[in-house]
Amino acid sequence: MPVYLRGLLFSSQRGRDSISSGSLADLVGVNPWQIRKDFSYFGDFGTRGVGYNVEKLARQIKKILKLDAVQKTALVGVGNLGSALLAYPGFSPYGLDIVVAFDSDAKKIGRRIKNLVVEDVSNLATLKKRNIKLAIIAVPREAAQQTADALIEAGVKGILNFSPCYLAVPKKVKVITIDIAMDLARLPYYMPAS
Amino acid sequence: MPVYLRGLLFSSQRGRDSISSGSLADLVGVNPWQIRKDFSYFGDFGTRGVGYNVEKLARQIKKILKLDAVQKTALVGVGNLGSALLAYPGFSPYGLDIVVAFDSDAKKIGRRIKNLVVEDVSNLATLKKRNIKLAIIAVPREAAQQTADALIEAGVKGILNFSPCYLAVPKKVKVITIDIAMDLARLPYYMPAS
Repeated sequence: MPVYLRGLLFSSQRGRDSISSGSLADLVGVNPWQIRKDFSYFGDFGTRGVGYNVEKLARQIKKILKLDAVQKTALVGVGNLGSALLAYPGFSPYGLDIVVAFDSDAKKIGRRIKNLVVEDVSNLATLKKRNIKLAIIAVPREAAQQTADALIEAGVKGILNFSPCYLAVPKKVKVITIDIAMDLARLPYYMPAS
Repeated sequence: MPVYLRGLLFSSQRGRDSISSGSLADLVGVNPWQIRKDFSYFGDFGTRGVGYNVEKLARQIKKILKLDAVQKTALVGVGNLGSALLAYPGFSPYGLDIVVAFDSDAKKIGRRIKNLVVEDVSNLATLKKRNIKLAIIAVPREAAQQTADALIEAGVKGILNFSPCYLAVPKKVKVITIDIAMDLARLPYYMPAS
């Protein structure tokens, strides 16, 4: 579903109103019959010979993925990676909005980046009052687990982790770890010997 | 396999010599029987009651993944994200080494970051002579496709793409796109309604 949404958002950005299962299949790398099967589960958005209504289908998938309301997100760690994430243009099409950023470095606290003022990481507990359930961890590896603990203590339920380590979290919390090195490490296998 | 390698590297960093299929299973989130089955395919590295030899097994998996020799990697785009990648400590355990960085910004070209001097992106063709087959794209979306074209022209066979867009590449080239927003967008689905 996230992959389909991404394909639809991409088509939408290109100004397309409708898309055939074949074109969407090409875009996202899935079989057209798989797409038709998946979409048939939640009602029919396609018209034979015309294709799927891009906006309608995207809205429906967003609803399924609970992305139909804006999801307020906290960022912890405003180093190079954190700054890159604040500047990243790809979040808003998914309804994701980084509304608060934290750091432990006194030189960074109080600094304005984009539209945010960096806050002291010792104030993570304020996330509970602000009803923020989603967070991104972009701190050094050594600080990752304690950051996760503090976020969960503050009521965060979903964490996107960029630190190259495993985080121990309760079952009710969902963590997705982005291991850039592991992704890069998958490439050589596919490359012909030179 | 990359996931197993990651678990083994992690254990190794913690100073462990051997690991049971059960512990490795817990670490990477796979069934122990699946691990035993997968590892049995390429010879037996385990001793009943002792477990797998971490170093030996990691070396074998690296060989399978063609990570047994150092893989020289080029980085294109030294903005916030590119700088974060240059500083990222997670590549070397996998045998990945960013040996050259490019940018199009005259203010960045010639600047020293970590041990590299940023080169002019118009010199991408030199990758062929340097025998670099792996590249990371960390440029703005608008420049991503032309960067990919130039890299492929220069003989690059594997691309890790951080631009939030689809890249059109020949079949012989392998692209892995890291869509940070899509990963973050997967989280709300798992979160309880508040």
